[in-house]
Amino acid sequence: MRPIEGVTVVVDLDEMVITGYRDRVVVPMPKAGGTDYRTMKPNTKEKLSGLRKGFIVEGHMIRWDNWAFHLAFDARAGLVISHAAVSEHGTSPHRRSVMYRGFISELFVPYMDTAEEWYYRTFFDEGEYGLGLFAFPLVPTKDCPAKAEFFDGYYAGQSGRPVKVERVFCVFERYAGDVSWRHTETGIPNRVFTEVRPEVTLVVRMVSTLGNYDYIIDWEFMHSGSIKVKVGLTGILEVKATPYTHVDQTTGDDIHGTLLAENTIGMYHDHFITYHLDLDVDGPENSFVVSKMETVRAARASLRKSYWTVVRETVKTELDARVLLGRAGPADLVVVNPNKRTAVGNQVGYRLIPEGGTGTSLLSNDDYPQIRAAYLKNEVWVTTYNASEKWVGGLYTYQSRGDDNLAVWSLRNKSIENTDIVLWYTVGFHHIPYQEDFPVMPTLSGGFELRPANFFESNPLLKMGLPCVGFVYLPNCTKET
Amino acid sequence: MRPIEGVTVVVDLDEMVITGYRDRVVVPMPKAGGTDYRTMKPNTKEKLSGLRKGFIVEGHMIRWDNWAFHLAFDARAGLVISHAAVSEHGTSPHRRSVMYRGFISELFVPYMDTAEEWYYRTFFDEGEYGLGLFAFPLVPTKDCPAKAEFFDGYYAGQSGRPVKVERVFCVFERYAGDVSWRHTETGIPNRVFTEVRPEVTLVVRMVSTLGNYDYIIDWEFMHSGSIKVKVGLTGILEVKATPYTHVDQTTGDDIHGTLLAENTIGMYHDHFITYHLDLDVDGPENSFVVSKMETVRAARASLRKSYWTVVRETVKTELDARVLLGRAGPADLVVVNPNKRTAVGNQVGYRLIPEGGTGTSLLSNDDYPQIRAAYLKNEVWVTTYNASEKWVGGLYTYQSRGDDNLAVWSLRNKSIENTDIVLWYTVGFHHIPYQEDFPVMPTLSGGFELRPANFFESNPLLKMGLPCVGFVYLPNCTKET
Repeated sequence: MRPIEGVTVVVDLDEMVITGYRDRVVVPMPKAGGTDYRTMKPNTKEKLSGLRKGFIVEGHMIRWDNWAFHLAFDARAGLVISHAAVSEHGTSPHRRSVMYRGFISELFVPYMDTAEEWYYRTFFDEGEYGLGLFAFPLVPTKDCPAKAEFFDGYYAGQSGRPVKVERVFCVFERYAGDVSWRHTETGIPNRVFTEVRPEVTLVVRMVSTLGNYDYIIDWEFMHSGSIKVKVGLTGILEVKATPYTHVDQTTGDDIHGTLLAENTIGMYHDHFITYHLDLDVDGPENSFVVSKMETVRAARASLRKSYWTVVRETVKTELDARVLLGRAGPADLVVVNPNKRTAVGNQVGYRLIPEGGTGTSLLSNDDYPQIRAAYLKNEVWVTTYNASEKWVGGLYTYQSRGDDNLAVWSLRNKSIENTDIVLWYTVGFHHIPYQEDFPVMPTLSGGFELRPANFFESNPLLKMGLPCVGFVYLPNCTKET
Repeated sequence: MRPIEGVTVVVDLDEMVITGYRDRVVVPMPKAGGTDYRTMKPNTKEKLSGLRKGFIVEGHMIRWDNWAFHLAFDARAGLVISHAAVSEHGTSPHRRSVMYRGFISELFVPYMDTAEEWYYRTFFDEGEYGLGLFAFPLVPTKDCPAKAEFFDGYYAGQSGRPVKVERVFCVFERYAGDVSWRHTETGIPNRVFTEVRPEVTLVVRMVSTLGNYDYIIDWEFMHSGSIKVKVGLTGILEVKATPYTHVDQTTGDDIHGTLLAENTIGMYHDHFITYHLDLDVDGPENSFVVSKMETVRAARASLRKSYWTVVRETVKTELDARVLLGRAGPADLVVVNPNKRTAVGNQVGYRLIPEGGTGTSLLSNDDYPQIRAAYLKNEVWVTTYNASEKWVGGLYTYQSRGDDNLAVWSLRNKSIENTDIVLWYTVGFHHIPYQEDFPVMPTLSGGFELRPANFFESNPLLKMGLPCVGFVYLPNCTKET
């Protein structure tokens, strides 16, 4: 971490002698302060998890080590996280805002058959049914681990009376055997040492069953400041009856699916889970930055012909903020606060990292379901915050003719610089069924990570004590006393 | 699961009367057999995990429930999985071949600065250093959970004597609180019931530390037949000293990285982890099938304008098998055995599902490091099996001038139909450093899933008893007696 820059030494390994030495340029050596990850002292006064329930519930607020957030239930969206804020361990008890509100805004599932009984099966599972209305009680020890805590949800029924959904959420600390950071230092002969921190996270879960499909909806909070958002698809395929009993009989006939068993076709379809992510990165005024990696030809004097560098563009308007990941070329997508900078001057930010499930809609633009779901030709959109724009497919999805959705809102093409913005991200799966999905489907997952990007001055984990893992207390872990 | 096809009923929801009924077409109703996931009886004679160590070690073979595989250590590749075979629970003790051999073939890390002290930093971390030679002992309870079992590795040292690497691998059962499948059945009023199976997997891990970076290399075996392959990046950034102490001083100067602290730049670079996946799906003769999803215009009579269908192409030759994921359009990538079909006639297969980390090289084709790593312009390649082609960047990587690598081998453009083939897949990260990565980096992960695709007749989990999770025995889980 403290390079002496500009020195090149050439060694003859046969003779073991230095045959060349060049001191091309003199650059100040970086200071030692903050470079040694080993010597960071955990703040032992801090409350670290390791209780049976590693978190604290105060009303609708959940506090867990360096995180705090509000957990709410909504008939339409189901699980809603809001006022999520995080601090760095050992520095300050002050938690800084990350996300004003995050939830799944729509779940669109179009099937790919034009037959009279099938063409209309283009379900807006949230706007037409409701992720909350179709969330059923979680099964202790199976849907969530034994030490999970469960929360009930309430919504207004058709009569106006409250309806209770028991155990609609669970919250649990997870130790999956993974590592939050590690390093083996081998530079000093015969003095190899290894530092490792096991990774303990906090998972918030809801499961919605929209008819045949079950969606396992997870928000996972990490000590590093990351939020990992994941959706697991399981449940039952929509199948169509057919006279066919063997694939060889289908030659020349598009059966719009996979023959799963005799007389049974699992139909081609998509799952598009669109998240409303109203990030407030260290405050409400944010901008959307696309850091494109672009190839540059090296100067002729160099022995390299090329390298890539970062062209950092603050996106100006809503229409310019649309990103189709496959086409866009490599880029980091970052929501920054242009008014807050780190000590060395980087804008504080959070970046979006896709982790599986990046399909967009393949329907024609003039097709009625596509007109209603016009926002599904790009994975990423950014709009200015507008209190009425919560539902990406429109407030009244059943009656939607495509005149109230994200694609329409974006046409106003407002400025999204240094203002309260909403990031919309779709996790998309094209689903060709396979026989393994019959009669019930092994979970298939996708999602994304929201990861701090110059939000902290340095790795926020370093001053954290060794986490205590569930019931298994690691030696010297930081227990609550 | 037993649709009565072709019937449409129109209901007036205000009046609650049927106003229309149409029986358009008569199709045989699928049989009941195999459709009810609830009634599947677990085979209680089967040994299911739930021991302190849920798996059996016999020499180099590891057996775990429906999986068996060979685990070996190699100075260059590090962790090598071979002879991986899987069975369906409760049907047959016969395990069918999935993968002859799988390992990381190369790990290329080019830096993006042309300065004299930096231009050559284009490390082939495996061919030039060795994932095995740079694997250090895992730390119990931190690198792997408390109940993990550890294995030593041996390689031939420079004197020819065996060198022991203690605890180079760990193997452990993981229960991360996730669900392998579930469904809530809501179709019958007042009779909502939920079936859930918790997911227990077997993880095999090695960590290699190549100088500054630590790579956490996981192979995760799942009861569903999937293998999830993941690499976690952590450790220390390569930094460069600079006179700059604030971003504002750098205006107009490409510093080839991020100012992380005063006088310290974290340099732009990539990580390309290329896997050699010699799949033998139900036998050695396999083919590579690309199932493309293509938009089709609907017939004019339909109320839909469009849908997508699958154009299934068996790729004929090595050059045609190259896939650049972002450009290729949506497709399922499947290795099939064209000689083995399911009862209804689907070719048995395994598909590759990318899960984060899909970058390819941005260097110019005429740049020397790119000539040596010419295989990094596509994520996916398929070649015929050749015993001498294990190392994607060439056998003697140090001396490579680009004349011995995967891109060159593929130029012979051999037929890859119905023969022993190797799938090569690269997990790639473009790494723009952020201040959080300093002085040690929180783990960033990517990988892929190898998932059965018509390999089994139906969901292979159904006849499996409820797994016993580590020490926490679920009620009625299937213990070994």
